[in-house]
Formats: sequence, C-alpha cells, structure tokens
Amino acid sequence: MGFFTRDIATMDDLFVHMLRDIYYAEQQLVKALPNMIEKASDPELKQLFKAHLAETRDHVKRVEDVFRMHGVEASGIDCPAIDGIIEEADDITDETDNNAVADAALIAAAQAAEHYEMTRYGSLIAWAKQLGRNDCADVLAKTLEEEKAADQKLTRIALASVNLKAA
Amino acid sequence: MGFFTRDIATMDDLFVHMLRDIYYAEQQLVKALPNMIEKASDPELKQLFKAHLAETRDHVKRVEDVFRMHGVEASGIDCPAIDGIIEEADDITDETDNNAVADAALIAAAQAAEHYEMTRYGSLIAWAKQLGRNDCADVLAKTLEEEKAADQKLTRIALASVNLKAA
Repeated sequence: MGFFTRDIATMDDLFVHMLRDIYYAEQQLVKALPNMIEKASDPELKQLFKAHLAETRDHVKRVEDVFRMHGVEASGIDCPAIDGIIEEADDITDETDNNAVADAALIAAAQAAEHYEMTRYGSLIAWAKQLGRNDCADVLAKTLEEEKAADQKLTRIALASVNLKAA
Repeated sequence: MGFFTRDIATMDDLFVHMLRDIYYAEQQLVKALPNMIEKASDPELKQLFKAHLAETRDHVKRVEDVFRMHGVEASGIDCPAIDGIIEEADDITDETDNNAVADAALIAAAQAAEHYEMTRYGSLIAWAKQLGRNDCADVLAKTLEEEKAADQKLTRIALASVNLKAA
C-alpha cells in the first residue's frame, strides 16, 4: 500500500481490504501455531493449540468462501499487527527456560491473537450487514464465535492450572 | 531482547516484562491519538478520541504507579504488536478520500488497539493476583474497565452513525 494511492473509495472497498488483512492473519497463524504446540508443556494447553490449529485452517477456508460469495479473488495483504503479535510471542518464549512461565506467556500471546481476530471479525460483520450482505456476515460470525470460545478456554486453562504452576 | 538471553526466569519477571510492553503501548497511543483526532470527521467520534487521549495519559500514569508499587523502575520495551496496529491505522486512512469511510476505518483501528490493551491488561491482572499483588491488580483493573467502555462507545458510534454514512 502506498501513501499516494487512494484505493479505498467506498465501504465495499474497506470491507474487501479488511478481508484481505484477516486472510493474511489467519494464514500466518496457521504457520505460527505448530511452533506454539511444540513449545507448550501443559498437556491441556498443547491439546487446545492443536484443536485451534484445525479451527484456524477452517477459518482460512471460510474467508475464501466470503471472497467467493462477494465475487472477489482471494488474496492477502501484509498485516503488521499480526506479525507483531507473533513476533512478541516468539521473543517472550525464547526468553525463558521455565516451562510453566513459558506456558503462561504462550497463553497471553494466543489471547492477543484471538483478540486481534475478534475485533477484525467484529468490524467485518458490522460492515457486511451495512452492505446488505447478511450471508457474508453469517459465515464470518461462525468464526467469531470460535475465536471467542478459544479465548475463554485459554483463560480457563490459565486460571485453573498454568498460572498456579508458574507462580 | 536477544535470542540468547534468558531474562524471564519467574512469573514475576513475566509480569514486569508485560508491564513494560503495555507501558510502551500506552505511550505510543498517546502519540498516535492526536493524528486520529485530526483525521476523524464525525464530531462525536472526534470528541470520543479526545476523551480517550486524556484517559490514555492517565493509563500511562497508572502503569508508572504499578511499577512504583512493585519496586521496579518504569521503562518500556518495544512492542511490535501495537506498532503494527498503529501502522495499519495510518495506512488505511491514507488510502481513502471518503470521510465517512475513513471514520469507519479509524473506529476499526481504535478497536484493534483497545482489544490489544484489553488482552494485555487481562493477563497482567491475572498474574498480579497469582503473585499476591491484589493492590497492583486493582489499579490495572481500573484501566481495563476504561478500555472496555471505550470499545463499547466505538461500537455504538459505528452502528448508530458512522457505518450508515459510509455505506
């Protein structure tokens, strides 16, 4: 994206732009999650990351479905926000040799990713409805519910197990 | 932070590390919000950003309070996640000449920042409680409530006004 282009003229353009942002973000998370699975020590956390990797692959397909429904070719754009979230996750877990502390850091990193996706899907759903595309909104809402559920499961594991071991 | 250092040995270290992350993030938002105020066209949105700039300055002071309570010197560390969120906000608003579409994009950008902060404060509060520092948790919880309230106000303005004009 260049400073001198003016590519977003309408709400529809904004919707497609953000769809490309989340498409890239979901793909980066598919690449990052195997590393998080490997780094996690708590068996329940490892299992949750594995399940979320399968879900994230579905999220990529759903974004592709929405591109198709909207008549636009699926493509991503750089998303420095998700790159930054993943970079912080890598940095912080490389800084510790304590497995329980690394698990607590991994949960925080995963929740930062979930929250990023939740806010992006929230905007996309509101814009799709505004554009009269309730069909697209419904597909995106399925993913939003799964992101919220994953976030809640991470909070539960943190409070019930990981933080106790780390403290 | 370097790959070969192992600076985070305990939950306490992780807490201080994340405190430095959010300290930097809040400071970057204090720098970014005046630009967002200038770019906003909707008067209610402009006013909300102004009020949130004042709140964000308070959040910086509260993080400094927590550093002091915890006996650690206040300092920030690079937070590529918030840098990425702010970079995306700049890019997307530079891409449009349509004021209503720019406002919708500004709301989405601000909500991404709010969600990032919400998840970081959520982790910090859980860790503070685990470390027996309910006093620190209470201070951080005040900010978390203000971030959640700002996010809800942004959703309300988007649905009641900005998205209608943009569509």
